[in-house]
Amino acid sequence: MALDSRRRAGGRSARRAVRMAHDFTMLPGLTRKIPVCEVMDGSQVERIHNASMDILENVGVQFRDPIAIADWKRAGAKVIGELVYLDRGLVMDLISTIPSDFTYHARDPKKNVRLGGKHSIFVPMTGAPYLRDLDDVRRNPMLDDLAMFHKLSHMMPALHSSAHHIVEPYDHPISQRHLRITYSSMKYSDKTFMGMTTSPKNAEDVMDMCAILFGEEFIMNNPVTTGNCNGNSPLVWDETMLGALRAFGARRQPVLCSPFVLGGANTPASVAASVAQLNAEALSALAYTQLCNKGTPAIYGHYLSTVSMKSGAPMAGTPEISLMNFMIGQMARFYDVPWRTSNTLGGAKTFDAQAGYESATTLSAVMHAGANYIWHSAGWNEAGMHCSVAKFVVDAEQCAMAYRMAEGPKWDDFDAALAAVPDVGPGGHYLGHPHTQENFQTAYFMPDLFDNNSIEQWAAEGSVEITERALTHAKNLLNAYEEPKLDEARNEALLDYIARREREIPAADELNQSY
Amino acid sequence: MALDSRRRAGGRSARRAVRMAHDFTMLPGLTRKIPVCEVMDGSQVERIHNASMDILENVGVQFRDPIAIADWKRAGAKVIGELVYLDRGLVMDLISTIPSDFTYHARDPKKNVRLGGKHSIFVPMTGAPYLRDLDDVRRNPMLDDLAMFHKLSHMMPALHSSAHHIVEPYDHPISQRHLRITYSSMKYSDKTFMGMTTSPKNAEDVMDMCAILFGEEFIMNNPVTTGNCNGNSPLVWDETMLGALRAFGARRQPVLCSPFVLGGANTPASVAASVAQLNAEALSALAYTQLCNKGTPAIYGHYLSTVSMKSGAPMAGTPEISLMNFMIGQMARFYDVPWRTSNTLGGAKTFDAQAGYESATTLSAVMHAGANYIWHSAGWNEAGMHCSVAKFVVDAEQCAMAYRMAEGPKWDDFDAALAAVPDVGPGGHYLGHPHTQENFQTAYFMPDLFDNNSIEQWAAEGSVEITERALTHAKNLLNAYEEPKLDEARNEALLDYIARREREIPAADELNQSY
Repeated sequence: MALDSRRRAGGRSARRAVRMAHDFTMLPGLTRKIPVCEVMDGSQVERIHNASMDILENVGVQFRDPIAIADWKRAGAKVIGELVYLDRGLVMDLISTIPSDFTYHARDPKKNVRLGGKHSIFVPMTGAPYLRDLDDVRRNPMLDDLAMFHKLSHMMPALHSSAHHIVEPYDHPISQRHLRITYSSMKYSDKTFMGMTTSPKNAEDVMDMCAILFGEEFIMNNPVTTGNCNGNSPLVWDETMLGALRAFGARRQPVLCSPFVLGGANTPASVAASVAQLNAEALSALAYTQLCNKGTPAIYGHYLSTVSMKSGAPMAGTPEISLMNFMIGQMARFYDVPWRTSNTLGGAKTFDAQAGYESATTLSAVMHAGANYIWHSAGWNEAGMHCSVAKFVVDAEQCAMAYRMAEGPKWDDFDAALAAVPDVGPGGHYLGHPHTQENFQTAYFMPDLFDNNSIEQWAAEGSVEITERALTHAKNLLNAYEEPKLDEARNEALLDYIARREREIPAADELNQSY
Repeated sequence: MALDSRRRAGGRSARRAVRMAHDFTMLPGLTRKIPVCEVMDGSQVERIHNASMDILENVGVQFRDPIAIADWKRAGAKVIGELVYLDRGLVMDLISTIPSDFTYHARDPKKNVRLGGKHSIFVPMTGAPYLRDLDDVRRNPMLDDLAMFHKLSHMMPALHSSAHHIVEPYDHPISQRHLRITYSSMKYSDKTFMGMTTSPKNAEDVMDMCAILFGEEFIMNNPVTTGNCNGNSPLVWDETMLGALRAFGARRQPVLCSPFVLGGANTPASVAASVAQLNAEALSALAYTQLCNKGTPAIYGHYLSTVSMKSGAPMAGTPEISLMNFMIGQMARFYDVPWRTSNTLGGAKTFDAQAGYESATTLSAVMHAGANYIWHSAGWNEAGMHCSVAKFVVDAEQCAMAYRMAEGPKWDDFDAALAAVPDVGPGGHYLGHPHTQENFQTAYFMPDLFDNNSIEQWAAEGSVEITERALTHAKNLLNAYEEPKLDEARNEALLDYIARREREIPAADELNQSY
């Protein structure tokens, strides 16, 4: 008993030490102050726009969904079978009602974040069928692993969301998984989160849970979550995605309209032509969000990769992906809608130098492109097949560094700092100067996870490489984690809802087997 | 004898296989087509400029060199002891004669490269006291190691220079090393190269060797090499650097005027104020190049890092380094002079994910900043303490990728590629389309050194990580290397010169001990 309480006290004081050494306060949503990288002039933007409009009008988009087909017919579009030919006037008219920016409401209102225009947020990766765990072992994830990633998302200051199924929890039936995933996002973090779109019915369940957490009326007036609807490029939207899109739209919650681009495999072998096709695809779904519920926020999305001719595998960090990001950012701004891209992607099998180059190249491109909803911002490796705990915390720190960069240089310290120059004079040094001592910590970012010691010092400390350092850091964070408790009544209501739905949904629901 | 010739034939055919699989043709000097990232508006540029002018006029710059002091007095500057107070009119007048761009002439005229404005080149790292060799063993380098790096520089398409002492050859006396280093640069590659500035006399030897290689009259009219003159920040230029600067100026060869910034240690704890000080330092040396020989090309330089409060060590890839790069780029363009920065820097002890993040972050910042002379573009790790063979070839491939990105999107393929969209139609695929088959290879960059296979394929091939893949690649390249032979008469003359100078310079020359 005495031992037990000592042990607990030790645990508390260790936790306190970690909490003292690190500031877990979420950074406010990023407001960019550096310019966007625009690689097209006005006439080139028009060229992409016109090419996309030609595709929409003359090639058409396949909506593999009878409800959407009926909706489009009612809207006056030309429809042949599942092919919808969208007139440019209709498309431009529909997308004109998408808000150019809006605010996500989080469970903790201090963590509300604005999105669109100069306002951006970082969201961790999702959807990994494997993880590399706290021991760097690659295996199938469980619900506890998902909870761990939600806790880490909660603690990393530059992450503005806990997302949803960062990893797939294999210890729960597929058909009921969306309920446990959503609850885990809501429970372990009070930041905004993503909502599952794995079927129209699953999406409705998520909407119901959001209504329980925030109130039905509240969500009808405020975005609280985000769905993702992947397109099947080229030029196809399927029933699952469109049904989920409608479920979100009915509760006025935004979705990412995301063509899934494997450059060269499902788009032409040309950067500019790929962007024209992707743009047509995104616009067709964005237009449909407004047909479903006019004025509902919606986000121009995509998943971007180019394909290796050697293996057919998607590649990350290639120059064409950067260029497409710059171009798509310009198109989204041309249409004045918020846009989503993917961040810190890597195709490496381990957390090696390849992963570092790929991730940092993607992050830089995304920041210069001016993306708003910066998804897959932590953990993605092996082309999304696994989420790495080590990479997760390093990526999240990299996002904090990119955030600082995107804020641009400070000027409020300029005159005071300049006054130190004559004090120190030629050949002097600044470390002892009072201005330096007062301002050093805020003037220059010092990453926790990069080792800048001499090799002798590094060797004396055990030659610890970045994967091991990052995993130690993650363990310390988890040890210091404090749960932002859910309101008890809402928690009960959520648990009741889940219990009811799990009774209703067979564990081996045929409809969900394909997920 | 039979065996021997078979072996040689095998070697030849293996070399041919590598040469068939890779194109070693040097990429032309980069002509940027993407915009530069400008984080300051016109009034902020003026603020930096005015702060720098105030520093030059009122704080002064220390020139620790009697010849420079006499030169400045003669030019009408106010001089007190070693402190030179530079009037803004004098500085601006002097730097106005620096060419805004010029062409480096290489031994192979096809490898001439333009520098300045939109024209940029990649130059490998130099100065490492250690290498990580072809077995990833960290040790002191020898002349053979230096030759190896010069061969790799010759073969990597995105490297436009073979630089100089990429690694320090420890098997030759310090006092005579500059001769062997310069000869190695000249012999193993026909690209442009750098010239040693380790003492005024050494710099003169390099100039003599350039005159032998290219002809005295030719070098007086054409830049053929580059020296680097580091400043001692804050606000000090020493006798070694100034003497070398004069030796290069006398033969009209450009130097990099490079303040050596450890942000927060030898500059104020403020990004903007650090840039103001660095700018004053660079301008003072740039002005001096014109005092020495009006109209000689000169390059605005710097080494940029921020300092870790934990260890005092320089850091790489931090957000403030990116911001300073953007700002300094703007200042150099304001003065209309070419500028040099440092690329692919890393502080990691091995070629791990940290090295990847740091290097790619630096590379991206440098590309968006619009740097012209992009030095340290291959091999730098451990804060410059070692040059890694593995990292060298990966960095060089990353530069090729960044080069492609900086060329911007192509438009000449747009209409032809768009024509494939209706051919393929919704739900189709492009891989079989004739346009794809004809254009895939040029449309999307496929890195040799990134593995994008599935984990199963990767495991079946031995789970080879990037360091090992890169070292295998380097070995293949070296096996396929073909020396671009020096003209026999010039080669003899160079060897005679080296032999004479090595007789004249004692192996333990006291003057050179400090090098």
